[in-house]
Amino acid sequence: MDLSPRDPDWNERIRSSFAAQKFMVHLGAQIAHLSPGAVDLELKMAPELTQQHGYFHAGATSSIADSAAGYAALSLFAPGFGVLTSEYKINLLNPANQPVLLARGRVVKPGRTLTIARADVYGLDDGTQVHVATGLFTLMSVSGVKD
Amino acid sequence: MDLSPRDPDWNERIRSSFAAQKFMVHLGAQIAHLSPGAVDLELKMAPELTQQHGYFHAGATSSIADSAAGYAALSLFAPGFGVLTSEYKINLLNPANQPVLLARGRVVKPGRTLTIARADVYGLDDGTQVHVATGLFTLMSVSGVKD
Amino acid sequence: MDLSPRDPDWNERIRSSFAAQKFMVHLGAQIAHLSPGAVDLELKMAPELTQQHGYFHAGATSSIADSAAGYAALSLFAPGFGVLTSEYKINLLNPANQPVLLARGRVVKPGRTLTIARADVYGLDDGTQVHVATGLFTLMSVSGVKD
Amino acid sequence: MDLSPRDPDWNERIRSSFAAQKFMVHLGAQIAHLSPGAVDLELKMAPELTQQHGYFHAGATSSIADSAAGYAALSLFAPGFGVLTSEYKINLLNPANQPVLLARGRVVKPGRTLTIARADVYGLDDGTQVHVATGLFTLMSVSGVKD
Repeated sequence: MDLSPRDPDWNERIRSSFAAQKFMVHLGAQIAHLSPGAVDLELKMAPELTQQHGYFHAGATSSIADSAAGYAALSLFAPGFGVLTSEYKINLLNPANQPVLLARGRVVKPGRTLTIARADVYGLDDGTQVHVATGLFTLMSVSGVKD
Repeated sequence: MDLSPRDPDWNERIRSSFAAQKFMVHLGAQIAHLSPGAVDLELKMAPELTQQHGYFHAGATSSIADSAAGYAALSLFAPGFGVLTSEYKINLLNPANQPVLLARGRVVKPGRTLTIARADVYGLDDGTQVHVATGLFTLMSVSGVKD
Repeated sequence: MDLSPRDPDWNERIRSSFAAQKFMVHLGAQIAHLSPGAVDLELKMAPELTQQHGYFHAGATSSIADSAAGYAALSLFAPGFGVLTSEYKINLLNPANQPVLLARGRVVKPGRTLTIARADVYGLDDGTQVHVATGLFTLMSVSGVKD
Repeated sequence: MDLSPRDPDWNERIRSSFAAQKFMVHLGAQIAHLSPGAVDLELKMAPELTQQHGYFHAGATSSIADSAAGYAALSLFAPGFGVLTSEYKINLLNPANQPVLLARGRVVKPGRTLTIARADVYGLDDGTQVHVATGLFTLMSVSGVKD
């Protein structure tokens, strides 16, 4: 599997696109790791991210999983192509109330039109790690879109 | 398909559970419709819900779809059972930047342990309606959980 | 949603493509209904389609659901474009051992590159109908492929 | 993750259940590997497994992926519990016409009621390996069912 970036500015492109995602800012998500085909995002626990029992809401978990997978795909796109999530599926494995949620997005199969990625989300607490969710994502490259 | 509620207080239970979901409050989601096996949620467009191109972030779209499906399932549960999303899959059909996003959650098959629901999300703008997303959800009933 | 066929020979194209699917012949599947954006396939119960408890194997159920969704998509493609399943998700709602399994494939959103379809599978027995499965499918149109 | 079998006869149980799956026999699938939480199935190319372009039909690919995931789950069940596929999602990554299709089912999270597994399918040809499909599966344990 070829994971060479086709855009020499891939790193900067992801950072500026991420900074422009107001929804990620609203959740408080941050970039934890960037390499070609692999992006990690993290979210610190906060009351406004919880559901009725005090755990991270599945919507928060899925949102960072989706963005991690999407940026992992975008890291391999040629300049001038933007990324859209076409569809995804996620299994929520364990409820999470750890201080940090880490989503690891990884490209499974890069492609000109469609890129398939997976994302695994972990709850991190002082050296322990719980597997919170696993998902599969189809990302579409869209020409003429600045990302 | 039997869609009779088993909890006479199902309506009040959903309203108080929803009010306790701080994540839904953080997004600004509101209940638009409640009936047994059918729950609609809506979200008004706001900058903090957007991705880098000014459309609703897929995470926001998915979050209200998930909650609509989850509450549609919960509306049929017996007293003393809470709801957890086990997994879901969503197809994002069209980018959305309408003033209102409406998620319609509908039970497809109620069950003692697992309930299957679908949700369709529409972008509403002055009488027009765009199909934004469609998803399938597996909800689990959990005993001894207040919801 | 525009469901006008772009290939005047769409009906004949589906019939000849289906006849060329040796796997469908091996299972014994047959076309039950064809209209633009809507294809029904049926499978008669036979021992070689069962799992260890005598029910239709999920693989048989999914196979006709996938083909019904794929041909529903193909019915709307322009001449010279073939169809490939990119991904799907299916929920198995009830075990099925009825005499006939009917898969109804319906286009949800036609597109130039990607078409989204759903399929519902029913077990039919002397006037009764059981909902056996529901799924969502992403179909890709591929140019230069005879179908 | 605890992958200790709870049934001392897990190996024999899977072999006899698999032999009873007439659909797997009809496709020509065989067990290639068995260990607790990990089952590989293989399928040799044959005309009756193909779609209209001579590739393995997605239904054949998905069927062995589903069975590999299901038996990986069953390998960890206590005696007296059978397995049912509740739902799955599969991404078809590459068309496959290799001599052998190998599906590797692996448990991601074992559970009393629900077990989550993934399956990856590879096309094998004389030392080369192509990633054909990747999927996520929810398997349900059902008491009182002989498997």
